[in-house]
Amino acid sequence: MSKSSTVTVRERPVEDVASANAGALTIHGETLVVSTDQRIDLVDLTTLVMEFVRRFNIREGMVSLWSMHTTCSLFINEFQTALLSDIRRFLEQMVARDAEYMHNDPQHSDCDRMNADSHLRALLLGHNLTLQVSGGEVVLGQWQRILMAELDGPRARSLRVQIFGVS
Amino acid sequence: MSKSSTVTVRERPVEDVASANAGALTIHGETLVVSTDQRIDLVDLTTLVMEFVRRFNIREGMVSLWSMHTTCSLFINEFQTALLSDIRRFLEQMVARDAEYMHNDPQHSDCDRMNADSHLRALLLGHNLTLQVSGGEVVLGQWQRILMAELDGPRARSLRVQIFGVS
Amino acid sequence: MSKSSTVTVRERPVEDVASANAGALTIHGETLVVSTDQRIDLVDLTTLVMEFVRRFNIREGMVSLWSMHTTCSLFINEFQTALLSDIRRFLEQMVARDAEYMHNDPQHSDCDRMNADSHLRALLLGHNLTLQVSGGEVVLGQWQRILMAELDGPRARSLRVQIFGVS
Repeated sequence: MSKSSTVTVRERPVEDVASANAGALTIHGETLVVSTDQRIDLVDLTTLVMEFVRRFNIREGMVSLWSMHTTCSLFINEFQTALLSDIRRFLEQMVARDAEYMHNDPQHSDCDRMNADSHLRALLLGHNLTLQVSGGEVVLGQWQRILMAELDGPRARSLRVQIFGVS
Repeated sequence: MSKSSTVTVRERPVEDVASANAGALTIHGETLVVSTDQRIDLVDLTTLVMEFVRRFNIREGMVSLWSMHTTCSLFINEFQTALLSDIRRFLEQMVARDAEYMHNDPQHSDCDRMNADSHLRALLLGHNLTLQVSGGEVVLGQWQRILMAELDGPRARSLRVQIFGVS
Repeated sequence: MSKSSTVTVRERPVEDVASANAGALTIHGETLVVSTDQRIDLVDLTTLVMEFVRRFNIREGMVSLWSMHTTCSLFINEFQTALLSDIRRFLEQMVARDAEYMHNDPQHSDCDRMNADSHLRALLLGHNLTLQVSGGEVVLGQWQRILMAELDGPRARSLRVQIFGVS
């Protein structure tokens, strides 16, 4: 039984900026970096994503957000200091930081971050969002915000953002 | 520390019906309204979505469903009265209605719906689905149904449905 | 009150292989079958999906993975024997196998698999992933693996994989 995790290797790394067109259809992807300040940190990415989308003047389409990390999630919710504190506490209650995990046990794991809790919390929130674009802007409800959950920070995190649509 | 939630403002509101074409590629979005009857209500949207998709005669493509609300989720499961009752009870067990939440405390929050539980339950289920379309119809397994979870009703809820594909 | 679950019926079944093109835009879907060995089984699909995507030489696009089952999930995490064991135990702790469920009670349900726990565990993990494709390959972080969670096996499970992009 190996103590190591499988590494994902592409033939070539993802390019920081990549585009393709087919007539009026545009597809454009970029890598964005977001820095976090705490071990668990909830960051509002809405303005960043809205500004990214507005650059392309897409009438109808989609925008995909992908966290490049296993312990950094993306999800939708309301952005209010009080609620963010409830969300943080909820994640801590659902998945204990200090329970006995094989991933944190050097006998079974070569990971030295002791972050099994981060992996399990990410399981609940997911790693990506695929949003609609309409009239050149992201489709979101009045109280919906695009949130990133740093679950094992502080760190600099990479997100890939890809827009797909007809101008 | 603000007691308020950030409001998402587009330059222009999402149009109720919006389309774009690029050759044989069609993208078409519409807003649908679904009314719910209870505080927690599980609604089967499958027929609605299947009928929407059949109107477009898309050979291969995708259809995106987006809940415009933070406390209204979309997910896949089986639709059976007994199981729906288990799902409701599961959500109630995972997230207590009456625990102490900062979002429900007027000292920290200007929200008067006292609905922290709804926000946390939505976190577990998510707010959107991106389904495949093939042969003019949605791709679903025999027992899969497209379900909406009203988590703070009863209310009228808006969903945006967007189809994307080649006819 | 019916004891049965609603069955989803398309006019015609999903074809095993289906394609459509619009200029440089390709959309191609296929059904893949993955066999599992245990009641709860975590399977690494990354190589399968990477090989599928490389066949199409898509510069920029998306690939959608859809589990055709209610009790078989798809998600992203690290693939390490120790962590997989933690994930399995976490699912078992979050949703008890033997609690009292209406779905497992012949008085209320005609399902003879007694698998309410599988349905609830699938609720937490979700049934689909929409990944980005760039430079002809799937976009994934170094430690991210595409995982399938068999939640009521062993069985042969069908997944539909659909690629969408510009070559």
